[in-house]
Amino acid sequence: MDVEILTIGNELLSGRTLNTNSLFIGRIFTEMGFVVRRICTVGDNEEDIVNAIRESLSRKPGILIITGGLGPTYDDITSKSLSIALNKKYVMNNDAYEMLKERYSKLNLDITPERIKMAYMPENAIPIPNPEGTAPGIYIPGETEILCTPGVPREMAAILEIFIKNFMKKKSEKEYHEKNIRVKGIIESTLAPHVKKIVDKYNVYIKTHPVSFDLKKPVLEIQIVSDSREKLNESLNELKKVIKDLHGKIEE
Amino acid sequence: MDVEILTIGNELLSGRTLNTNSLFIGRIFTEMGFVVRRICTVGDNEEDIVNAIRESLSRKPGILIITGGLGPTYDDITSKSLSIALNKKYVMNNDAYEMLKERYSKLNLDITPERIKMAYMPENAIPIPNPEGTAPGIYIPGETEILCTPGVPREMAAILEIFIKNFMKKKSEKEYHEKNIRVKGIIESTLAPHVKKIVDKYNVYIKTHPVSFDLKKPVLEIQIVSDSREKLNESLNELKKVIKDLHGKIEE
Repeated sequence: MDVEILTIGNELLSGRTLNTNSLFIGRIFTEMGFVVRRICTVGDNEEDIVNAIRESLSRKPGILIITGGLGPTYDDITSKSLSIALNKKYVMNNDAYEMLKERYSKLNLDITPERIKMAYMPENAIPIPNPEGTAPGIYIPGETEILCTPGVPREMAAILEIFIKNFMKKKSEKEYHEKNIRVKGIIESTLAPHVKKIVDKYNVYIKTHPVSFDLKKPVLEIQIVSDSREKLNESLNELKKVIKDLHGKIEE
Repeated sequence: MDVEILTIGNELLSGRTLNTNSLFIGRIFTEMGFVVRRICTVGDNEEDIVNAIRESLSRKPGILIITGGLGPTYDDITSKSLSIALNKKYVMNNDAYEMLKERYSKLNLDITPERIKMAYMPENAIPIPNPEGTAPGIYIPGETEILCTPGVPREMAAILEIFIKNFMKKKSEKEYHEKNIRVKGIIESTLAPHVKKIVDKYNVYIKTHPVSFDLKKPVLEIQIVSDSREKLNESLNELKKVIKDLHGKIEE
């Protein structure tokens, strides 16, 4: 069951803002047993957003999470672009309008055109309340379930949580098990052929990350992932034996 | 002149590793006057890498920067996937082999198959020395100039610097000017219609980022970008006047 993430915003392309949203979303779905297959970032540009959404849908992921561009400003065009990508009308959603009206009346602020804009969505979309901000999330059920959230991280996280708990229909049947160890004294290319053998034998995923700057005092972070706890443990034991034979030191 | 970035690695999809490389590369090219148009992340999967490279090339960016997957391990398959994407033979590059031989002889290590693998590149590729690690960068000149670097951030940065100084042919003729201010006391949706007017009048780019958690004590970070210093200053002055009229407080 694949997941794709589309993060929208010029600030992510220009090196102004670190894309922590895709890290957060990637972690959540990975731990639920989904495979995050692709993350894409485009700017606040209708053509690029429409193309990126259509390309993603053509790959038929189970879930597509889109963040950014739901706010009140001229360059917040995600909802309109999503409507175009889906060939749906871009219309005011009454439920979303009620959410906004309630929010702004609490703040003693008028509903201006810029604020009403946040209630516009593809026809028949389901708005998801935003407990941490103003713009509601947008949920489109279907073969690929689509969720749009604002880009502000705390708003994204709050809406994502509500989506997963109360709206998302797809579930992963796979388990996710992970173990990380740190190894001193072996460089990546020395360990590489042994890792390959263990990966092939147990059908687990092992990734070695060099983290030392000095090849004469090498440090590797090693991540082992499997959908079976048993396989994870067996492959880890074999890896530890190899590391010992190569005179490496393990820190867990 | 568009730039695209393709970052490769399961760790970027699974929420293990924050994608700081794309931030760094995005910043460098933005400040040189290029437009970073798209960032894509795929895992260590040949089909996904080949597709992502071909899709990027079909959009004809001036430059494509690819990071990750050039190391000695079984899942480092970027160079092979690049060869497939370009319909080129995947062959041992003699210059790259010499770089590796020198590196390993300094470390008193043999050249094993895993280490020789890092000398394999698309036919006629140009290897770029890696002063911070082992795997050389890969440069493919052409209508889209392609650079591949390892994913380790310090190796990526060192190779990127050498590429820009000594290899890259494309230059941007646009200047890049940017100014950031912080504004207290105005919420984003109140400022939005005024920002739109200034953007239309001066043809500059203005982005407002809400950074306060409390809508009753709002704080906005505002970024103004233009390829003309004059327009930047004129639009900034007009924006400051608007903010003053709305009783906002500016911090520079």
